[in-house]
Amino acid sequence: MTERITLAHGSGGQAMQRLIRDCFLTQFDSAELALMEDQAQLPLAPMVEQGDRLAFATDSFVVDPIEFPGGDIGKLAVCGTVNDLAVGGALPHSLSVGFILEEGLPLEQLERLVRSMAETARAAGVRIVTGDTKVVHKGSCDKIFINTSGIGVIPAARQLGARQVRPGDKILVNGTLGDHGAAILQARGELALSGTLESDCQPLNGLIEAMLAAGTVHAMRDATRGGVAAVCNEIAEVAGHRLQLKETTLPIHPQVRGISEILGLDPLLMANEGKLVAFVPAEHADAVLAAMRAHPSGYDAAIIGDVSTTDNPQVLVEGLYGTCRQLLMPVGEQLPRIC
Amino acid sequence: MTERITLAHGSGGQAMQRLIRDCFLTQFDSAELALMEDQAQLPLAPMVEQGDRLAFATDSFVVDPIEFPGGDIGKLAVCGTVNDLAVGGALPHSLSVGFILEEGLPLEQLERLVRSMAETARAAGVRIVTGDTKVVHKGSCDKIFINTSGIGVIPAARQLGARQVRPGDKILVNGTLGDHGAAILQARGELALSGTLESDCQPLNGLIEAMLAAGTVHAMRDATRGGVAAVCNEIAEVAGHRLQLKETTLPIHPQVRGISEILGLDPLLMANEGKLVAFVPAEHADAVLAAMRAHPSGYDAAIIGDVSTTDNPQVLVEGLYGTCRQLLMPVGEQLPRIC
Repeated sequence: MTERITLAHGSGGQAMQRLIRDCFLTQFDSAELALMEDQAQLPLAPMVEQGDRLAFATDSFVVDPIEFPGGDIGKLAVCGTVNDLAVGGALPHSLSVGFILEEGLPLEQLERLVRSMAETARAAGVRIVTGDTKVVHKGSCDKIFINTSGIGVIPAARQLGARQVRPGDKILVNGTLGDHGAAILQARGELALSGTLESDCQPLNGLIEAMLAAGTVHAMRDATRGGVAAVCNEIAEVAGHRLQLKETTLPIHPQVRGISEILGLDPLLMANEGKLVAFVPAEHADAVLAAMRAHPSGYDAAIIGDVSTTDNPQVLVEGLYGTCRQLLMPVGEQLPRIC
Repeated sequence: MTERITLAHGSGGQAMQRLIRDCFLTQFDSAELALMEDQAQLPLAPMVEQGDRLAFATDSFVVDPIEFPGGDIGKLAVCGTVNDLAVGGALPHSLSVGFILEEGLPLEQLERLVRSMAETARAAGVRIVTGDTKVVHKGSCDKIFINTSGIGVIPAARQLGARQVRPGDKILVNGTLGDHGAAILQARGELALSGTLESDCQPLNGLIEAMLAAGTVHAMRDATRGGVAAVCNEIAEVAGHRLQLKETTLPIHPQVRGISEILGLDPLLMANEGKLVAFVPAEHADAVLAAMRAHPSGYDAAIIGDVSTTDNPQVLVEGLYGTCRQLLMPVGEQLPRIC
């Protein structure tokens, strides 16, 4: 018989203690977690040696389905927060994890997701040091929601942010756009789409270190919900500049292009979970691009546009024949529960 | 017409930006949040002046109902994480907040909860510096779930933890037990209970500073899910000692006692959201107790038992006539979704 999550697993009592010991502690292999205190205690001295600022980020994950080609909600939860830290120039340090479980979730599936989180955390070089588990009645949530929060340390020399973006900056991406959105759409099976697309879900801190070693970067954002369109519009507004993208330079997987054309979706609006948009001074763009292409997470990196001055901050996309269209901030929701 | 949360509010696009600006930024009044970056950046230098370790904690909140006498899920979410930090001896520094919203949640209600979070954070002296919002289809979660994670700084002189508990330590609580559990039970209205009980939901960091200024404390835990019974059993197991409580010394509100007797519940197993259990060396117990009673969050503080050596770590409760019963770690779930 399949063993399943019961309300007792969220009670603070024996069943929860067992779940923590048998599943979480075994997988996460964390000395802080094993102390079973209400908070992890982390020495400040080694952090101060690495940098002068702490980065702090949080993200909740509600993706549907919870397992999909290229990843699962556990892998996504680790990558999402690692990437939110790393795009600020931080060296990711440690993560917290908060589970909300639906009564009836097969224990075996939870164990698989937890193993996936542990593997992804190891790959990214971060540790999961504190956690929390709640269980709600069947029907009060959909299988599993995961929150991860994370802290990282930003080296003193690094000053990244939307306000650092300057006219003349080149706009770079580390690979094909819209893979995660298209993979989830395909995995839902509601549309008769066949294909072998995988989510691009991956930690980006290794790539980012390679980029920052190669040259100056003014700002980075990972292009998750709302895709490159949301990132570019946010940056245009905050920095007060015009961003111009060249459609012909956008790296897009042929299958994603196909799905987009069939369904009338725009890959620039589709979610990514392992893609970043970087704003790099023109004189550093080639070096940073070369570093990206030399890294396994950046083989298909490309320069997709540049930044210029304007009285009217906006994002433009220049098409194949030189005509320009405005790329607006997404209005509605293309794909709910994409992450 | 009531304005309601739509899937677009979780899209990363225009509606989400509006929600962030009009609701979250207005209430939380945080410079880091206003930068709208993927991560908050917090200078390390002032932290190093306060202490030598960072405390990091997380908690998800799924309480039902989301508003109840004495609090709401927003207030609870701030208090819960502030208290998880403070019981480790940390000075709470800042919080992240992750919302999972059900499509259809009235915007006015969300605003009320956010205002409550902001007020509680101000009262506790912490700032909300980073956040995330997801929206799921109607029926895929129950109204609103909130995760808060938090960081704090632990002064170098403070070494609190279950492993510090010693035979001879006195066991103290800061007031009446089981108020939160009983208030939620009453608020659900499933039982024909009438009364004026309020949840004890409150930040405890002020009280804790007063306690630590008055004397040495070996360990503290806030007695949330699983109540005093869960805390005492965890401590007994980790420290390897026997904990003996005296039933006659337990501070219990007459209405909580009444509800417990009617329903056969044990106030020692009922959840609190503003109560801690402290383990204090005997020679400091009176001074720490006096400091607690002088603080608004500790008027009804009491010494409820003590710690002794044993070959068989367990928690005993001595009743009115001197007979002892073993207080076990809770097995099932008295009240699901209590926090």
